[in-house]
Amino acid sequence: MNGFALKGHVCYSKSAGELCTYADHYAVCIDGKSVGVFAALPQEYAQAEIIDCGDRLILPGLIDLHIHAPQYAYRGLGMDLELMDWLEQQAFPEEIKYQDLGYAECAYSMFAEQMKRSATTRACIFATKHRAATEILMQLMEETGLISYVGKVNMDRGAPGALCEESAGASAAETITWIKNAVEKFQRTKPILTPRFVPCCTDELMERLQKIQVTYGVPVQSHLSENHGEISLVHELRPQNGFYGEVYNDFGLFGKSRATEESVKTVMAHCVWSSEKEVELMKKNGVFVAHCPASNMNLSSGIAPIKSYLKHGLRVGLGSDVAGGQSESIFRAMTDAIQVSKLYWRLVDQGIQPVTFSEAFYMATKGGGEFFGKVGSFEEGYAFDAIVLDDACIPHPQKLTVRQRLERAAYLALDQKGVWKKYVDGMQVF
Amino acid sequence: MNGFALKGHVCYSKSAGELCTYADHYAVCIDGKSVGVFAALPQEYAQAEIIDCGDRLILPGLIDLHIHAPQYAYRGLGMDLELMDWLEQQAFPEEIKYQDLGYAECAYSMFAEQMKRSATTRACIFATKHRAATEILMQLMEETGLISYVGKVNMDRGAPGALCEESAGASAAETITWIKNAVEKFQRTKPILTPRFVPCCTDELMERLQKIQVTYGVPVQSHLSENHGEISLVHELRPQNGFYGEVYNDFGLFGKSRATEESVKTVMAHCVWSSEKEVELMKKNGVFVAHCPASNMNLSSGIAPIKSYLKHGLRVGLGSDVAGGQSESIFRAMTDAIQVSKLYWRLVDQGIQPVTFSEAFYMATKGGGEFFGKVGSFEEGYAFDAIVLDDACIPHPQKLTVRQRLERAAYLALDQKGVWKKYVDGMQVF
Repeated sequence: MNGFALKGHVCYSKSAGELCTYADHYAVCIDGKSVGVFAALPQEYAQAEIIDCGDRLILPGLIDLHIHAPQYAYRGLGMDLELMDWLEQQAFPEEIKYQDLGYAECAYSMFAEQMKRSATTRACIFATKHRAATEILMQLMEETGLISYVGKVNMDRGAPGALCEESAGASAAETITWIKNAVEKFQRTKPILTPRFVPCCTDELMERLQKIQVTYGVPVQSHLSENHGEISLVHELRPQNGFYGEVYNDFGLFGKSRATEESVKTVMAHCVWSSEKEVELMKKNGVFVAHCPASNMNLSSGIAPIKSYLKHGLRVGLGSDVAGGQSESIFRAMTDAIQVSKLYWRLVDQGIQPVTFSEAFYMATKGGGEFFGKVGSFEEGYAFDAIVLDDACIPHPQKLTVRQRLERAAYLALDQKGVWKKYVDGMQVF
Repeated sequence: MNGFALKGHVCYSKSAGELCTYADHYAVCIDGKSVGVFAALPQEYAQAEIIDCGDRLILPGLIDLHIHAPQYAYRGLGMDLELMDWLEQQAFPEEIKYQDLGYAECAYSMFAEQMKRSATTRACIFATKHRAATEILMQLMEETGLISYVGKVNMDRGAPGALCEESAGASAAETITWIKNAVEKFQRTKPILTPRFVPCCTDELMERLQKIQVTYGVPVQSHLSENHGEISLVHELRPQNGFYGEVYNDFGLFGKSRATEESVKTVMAHCVWSSEKEVELMKKNGVFVAHCPASNMNLSSGIAPIKSYLKHGLRVGLGSDVAGGQSESIFRAMTDAIQVSKLYWRLVDQGIQPVTFSEAFYMATKGGGEFFGKVGSFEEGYAFDAIVLDDACIPHPQKLTVRQRLERAAYLALDQKGVWKKYVDGMQVF
């Protein structure tokens, strides 16, 4: 038995509606897994090292289901633009720089260092089309100790020449080389198929990606129904499809393999304007939604009806979507999700209640964590991902419960002031 | 001549549409006033001490037109509630504690210390109904070096007994004592008449406050058209009035004295649901709007059409509205204002364009600053309020312009990581 126990104030979600908080408890990790949370250390774990976290908060690590590593360099810049203009004027010119491996190493080092220090323990990450730069990013993420899916982006149309891959065939060939390299080299950093989005991928490329998916069994991430302009463009490009998600589905990249009918782990960012049929198909196929509220505000996209998705039983987690979102803080994403859901209730549909704090915390941990397996909770059998937060820097004159301290830490994005300790899959990151 | 010059990267607004940024310039303060921004120090100011701010950003101090000091203790708590429930369950029970002067001293010290360290140089502050506690707050604010208006709250109905004042007469008498004390004791901390809002003030109280306003010439702050429930209640209480603002106006507390027709400096927080007539009257009377976007999200109030107010020529500044808003950061208020305006454009009225970064910066500085006179800019003749920000903690691989660095600092709420130096009315705070 190889284990330890974190002693402090433990918070975790059992379900979207059930947020548990326990003052002065032990969160116990044995062989990398959580065995539960206890008021007193059970006799069977008496050998476990006790790490006294004092008056601090112990949470499952936060999960970021959607973040663009090469966009970290320009987070919080050029925010007066809408999606398609922002892509042209901000995203694409910056991403072109990643053909320069020196630049990639410099910029990705900053990104990886920030991810390491953040409250995020697992993430789904977009890189760029550049294989070599993507491998540098994966190496850097591997060194952080975090667990992540990283995607070399596929795009063979709809972007400046320097960002488009030469052909669908060339894109596919690079993708295969990259997957083989990545699987061999990295343990904690896994490849994920990343067609940028339908407007950037020809049918031929999608067809090839489907085959790669079947051959290598890799999961899939992309963008879906973010913005009206984007959705119209998809409709023009694929008039034969009834809705956006159906395009991915036609190529077996939407939760279910076309070839084998097996499930394909898939996460789609945004889903702001998903139609009823799209939502139904996501539910049927088990597609994850990465809800990115800050990005959806910054790029004037709108508000995803996340409460309704939760009620429908969709799998929903949160994404920072740097740099559509300005911050990698998943605490910030939690409170943004609550805030925009209140505006949705007030301004769009009073039949859909706002997202509660408990639901937001669930999405940030267990909801998004499910993409990685049994992740995002301290319930028995879950991978032991934990962050320890010191909120002593937030002065207050009154007594607060653990639950209140958690809510405050999230609203004040305490993760940005520093995480005290961090564990991923039972391993201490710092 | 008594003066100094800050050397660094200077940013300020000339107007809502004109944000100026100058790398390696001098912002010169002579006898407490700005005399302008220069590429080289003019000969006439050769005697001025040069304070080298290196690669840092120099901005006018930020202005908070609406913040509740006693609510600072529970910022970021109980956010799953709507306005009227939140008042009952959070705001009122906490405010009752301020009859205990020990608690007031403890809690207000924390508030004042945070205000001192923040990027805010001037603020309009609500206290509670308690005169003695309000005087403690004023003393603490005076010691920070900031300039503020602080209001002892008037409320004689619509709240728990312990928070209601005994009678309109008692409330007025306390208010007079408080104003006399404050005027005598403080230089930088001024009294401001603060009827909480119409639902908490009887007509008799409003009538008495009008007389106090005329006698002592004090400005006015209150809440206006924040939430549907609140507006309905005002309509029930004052059916003779066509709109909410008209109630204040009937008592000479809405920008213009009923008795003398002279202008009465007035700021109204929120104005989310102001009718056309209300907006017209605000414009006519020169009433300031304190736009509090975070609070309007947190309390499910809605989105104030601020871009439209700016176009109409209303005077608009920003408010943190702690603890309706969770943070005292006016950078945060700036980016929240931009974000919600994008949702307003997308979801409510595509005829009203989003607020730009330049407009948000204007509201945070010169727009709100106007409430204090010639404040919020480095143009000649403006009071010299400045903050110096060190953004070296934000790593980036590419070169950035001063304008880009300012935008990023705001989006990442850099003010919460610390202000390097701060000056108010020509005086160094730290």
